[in-house]
Amino acid sequence: MRFTAETSADGVIIERDFTLGEIPGVLWTPASETGRTPLILMGHGGGQDKKTPAQLARAREFVTRGFAVAAIDAPGHGDRPRSAEDEQARADLRHAWQTGAPIGEISSRYGASLALRAVPEWQATLDALQELPEIGTDGPVGYGGGITLGTAIGVPLTAADSRITAALFGGGFVVHGALVEAARRVTVPVRYLLQWDDEHVDRQSALAFFDAFGSKEKTMHANSGGHGDVPAFEVASSIRFFRRHFGLES
Amino acid sequence: MRFTAETSADGVIIERDFTLGEIPGVLWTPASETGRTPLILMGHGGGQDKKTPAQLARAREFVTRGFAVAAIDAPGHGDRPRSAEDEQARADLRHAWQTGAPIGEISSRYGASLALRAVPEWQATLDALQELPEIGTDGPVGYGGGITLGTAIGVPLTAADSRITAALFGGGFVVHGALVEAARRVTVPVRYLLQWDDEHVDRQSALAFFDAFGSKEKTMHANSGGHGDVPAFEVASSIRFFRRHFGLES
Repeated sequence: MRFTAETSADGVIIERDFTLGEIPGVLWTPASETGRTPLILMGHGGGQDKKTPAQLARAREFVTRGFAVAAIDAPGHGDRPRSAEDEQARADLRHAWQTGAPIGEISSRYGASLALRAVPEWQATLDALQELPEIGTDGPVGYGGGITLGTAIGVPLTAADSRITAALFGGGFVVHGALVEAARRVTVPVRYLLQWDDEHVDRQSALAFFDAFGSKEKTMHANSGGHGDVPAFEVASSIRFFRRHFGLES
Repeated sequence: MRFTAETSADGVIIERDFTLGEIPGVLWTPASETGRTPLILMGHGGGQDKKTPAQLARAREFVTRGFAVAAIDAPGHGDRPRSAEDEQARADLRHAWQTGAPIGEISSRYGASLALRAVPEWQATLDALQELPEIGTDGPVGYGGGITLGTAIGVPLTAADSRITAALFGGGFVVHGALVEAARRVTVPVRYLLQWDDEHVDRQSALAFFDAFGSKEKTMHANSGGHGDVPAFEVASSIRFFRRHFGLES
């Protein structure tokens, strides 16, 4: 892991860009923190990247509540080169958006393909992060992703890596069979976000996806509104979820 | 409204028993509060009463966060006389519990009957409470009920009384048609609790009930676990819900 830039514009958050092999990433940590800091791996949405404004705002809220937050660009996203498959998927998705055609099948198929590439990248990133003295191997690790691509990658990642002990997912896309199978293998506490009126989601399949998680403790927050209307208060609520499971509050 | 007893064992909460006609009730207020206090009308569960330990614990948590909380015994419950219908319903419910028969239909039918009697009682209670200087007519009023009887009474009450501007309900029973109709007439922000593995609930009917609420802003919290396993952290979460909608926090 090679750090390529460090900024701390406001004295609250330290932002460090890094590369790990060909993976570009960013690590946000509290400027005032001295001891070990619990870590959140934060997946970004489809077509977005590690540093979109929404991602930055979420990371800031987590860091001011005592977390370190790491994000990497998914394959074919952000600063990364795009393969022919990436270009085709982007073109198909753009076309579907413009014509009002259903995007679920496309985003679901592409998400499954991206997850195969992204899961080992996240694991290598976590290996490297845990070598940093402010993270270490003994602190808690959570996964907090967006409700579409962040979940398509995060569910198989959480099923595969026992270092992740609490996770935030969502039902913002058409769920394919492999993802449901991965959800059955997730046993850590799960917070699940569903937009009740999501125009891109078959509600029954999203409810079946929540049902599939093997976790003894899981909570769905279903909010009225469309795909882009996740209420701002859910960020503070998910921070409380991680703090509770990491033993930082009751 | 006639106050019959006042206690303040711990210096934090003032508990005042009252009667309004033949309705026995209790009002909890912060001992330290001097100005107007937002009010929560708190419905109790089926077969329970205004002062069960769970109800007291919930009330205490609300009062320490700046609310006044009022509870009354539902018809046929607590300190109130039981009619022949009350006795029959109790016997039927006890028999169903003991034999493992479904209780949903019985509790749903009895809940509908109780609601017809309880809604005007709650409205008369609210009239009287708003005459108290510490409550007044200009402060916000919320309804927070249990997931069964508290909801069967609270939904038609909230649909009927525009003074209630935020409400907490649940899906802990079989939902009948009149209740779904009342839910369509509810337009204030709603928090809805569902136990995902509730042994007394048809999950699809509970989801359809949430769907029916006419509110622009509604949130379902669905937690893994059975009827009696509502997580303790949902009380603090519902307090934040009311505080947000009453403009007390963001």
